[in-house]
Amino acid sequence: MSFRDHIARCNNYDPARVVPLFAGADRIGLVRRDNAEALARFPEVFSVSGNMVRLAAPGHAEAVSLAVDRVVDALVAEKQIPKTRNETFDVAVRWGAPPLFRLDRGAVPFFGTRAYGVHLNGYRRDRNELMLWVGRRAANKRVAPDKLDNVVAGGIGNGHGLLDTLVKEADEEAAIPSVLVARAAPAGAVSYRMETTLGIRDDVLFVYDLELPADFEPQNRDGEFSGFTLMPAGEVLDRIRRSSDFKFNVNLVILDFAVRHAILRPDDPEYLDVATGLHRRLD
Amino acid sequence: MSFRDHIARCNNYDPARVVPLFAGADRIGLVRRDNAEALARFPEVFSVSGNMVRLAAPGHAEAVSLAVDRVVDALVAEKQIPKTRNETFDVAVRWGAPPLFRLDRGAVPFFGTRAYGVHLNGYRRDRNELMLWVGRRAANKRVAPDKLDNVVAGGIGNGHGLLDTLVKEADEEAAIPSVLVARAAPAGAVSYRMETTLGIRDDVLFVYDLELPADFEPQNRDGEFSGFTLMPAGEVLDRIRRSSDFKFNVNLVILDFAVRHAILRPDDPEYLDVATGLHRRLD
Repeated sequence: MSFRDHIARCNNYDPARVVPLFAGADRIGLVRRDNAEALARFPEVFSVSGNMVRLAAPGHAEAVSLAVDRVVDALVAEKQIPKTRNETFDVAVRWGAPPLFRLDRGAVPFFGTRAYGVHLNGYRRDRNELMLWVGRRAANKRVAPDKLDNVVAGGIGNGHGLLDTLVKEADEEAAIPSVLVARAAPAGAVSYRMETTLGIRDDVLFVYDLELPADFEPQNRDGEFSGFTLMPAGEVLDRIRRSSDFKFNVNLVILDFAVRHAILRPDDPEYLDVATGLHRRLD
Repeated sequence: MSFRDHIARCNNYDPARVVPLFAGADRIGLVRRDNAEALARFPEVFSVSGNMVRLAAPGHAEAVSLAVDRVVDALVAEKQIPKTRNETFDVAVRWGAPPLFRLDRGAVPFFGTRAYGVHLNGYRRDRNELMLWVGRRAANKRVAPDKLDNVVAGGIGNGHGLLDTLVKEADEEAAIPSVLVARAAPAGAVSYRMETTLGIRDDVLFVYDLELPADFEPQNRDGEFSGFTLMPAGEVLDRIRRSSDFKFNVNLVILDFAVRHAILRPDDPEYLDVATGLHRRLD
């Protein structure tokens, strides 16, 4: 797949196929029309009209979360949503705003609420060549089994911040000690909007770069990775261009790294597609 | 002005106010409706219908350029376009494609054809503090007189490439020797779409970073800058947030630098607006 194809795949969202989910005056999600129909059976929680869904459950975040949980449980029982992940994400009007409710991670695309993650590019320089640590996802992962991945990546669960998520995931996924993680440099965010079988992924990935020492080798502790490989960054880029070996959104995170570190250069015919295709404006 | 305001100012484009300019099957520009009306008087060069303008001049790039020049000269005589700049930009279907014609730089926003520039962030580290060289534009510049600017910036004129533009501008604007410029690292592109009094700026700025030696001081040769100052990058960022002292698009280039170099960090309330607001997707 070309770089353009990877970007297009993560941005296959078609506004004609969704209706907005509102909480008061704020849009908080994007619900595919078939999913909106399914929600119409729960009018005490979601009020569905022809062109929008409105959060109707009253009360504070705890009460709303319980009401939404009941809807999710019913849809899981009907197999409209896959089995719950037992990990919840905060739903809020915007990043940093107080959460309106928490939502099972597995149900997030059904409602198209924005999800946030952290991705860490672990790299080092060997004789002036930039090398990237690449993880292979375990074969039993629900999303993108056996695909190649960043050395550390994770969703930001409810009540968690960026840094504690990064420290926790770095420890569990790659055994990177927190003193090393503290040196990670924030380097922006990759954003995209993608339709999946379940609904809409409206994702924002906070990106960090971490130069790892030559004597450090990542080791997985939680069974989410089957192993790690150190690859020249240029080879990683070729592999992305030629294949779908990397998880869909990891292609974008590594392309962003490649632009920022001048691994991908302006003489590449896809340079501008990449440089302007990785940061969907938030609305 | 907040960071958001600077980004919004460069993206105030409203599709309802323009019609597309086509060459064959390809959109090559965005013409404001009042400008399209003015072009209707030149049917041998531009065919104007209610909802589009079509390049009608026949022949190869040279013949089309001469035909378009005659239109531009007539509009300059009527003061619909400011005096020509005697510098031309290539107009093409996309970056790297063969030019369809060349257009006087001063007329580019009238037609809303895409323009390309190079911007160089010149920086150095003083005792671990990142410092940016900032230029002040001459008071007699037509665009953004007396505003602060990158140390080197320029439009990519017809027939010129990125690197020769960068080398030429770095020499003329800041007396940076070509051996130093050769170390500049490409770091992506900033893109935005802005309505000005004349029409639409559909701009792509190729961004380069160059670490300058401690004993180097930029010196202007061509009268386009009145001087240069070395400022801590954090102070530059504060100044951008508090003022409009920098040229409109330079705010965006420096915000991009600040994200990539972790000067702007995720705890800033505008972080995601900035990280996702500087790279308008090309269409």
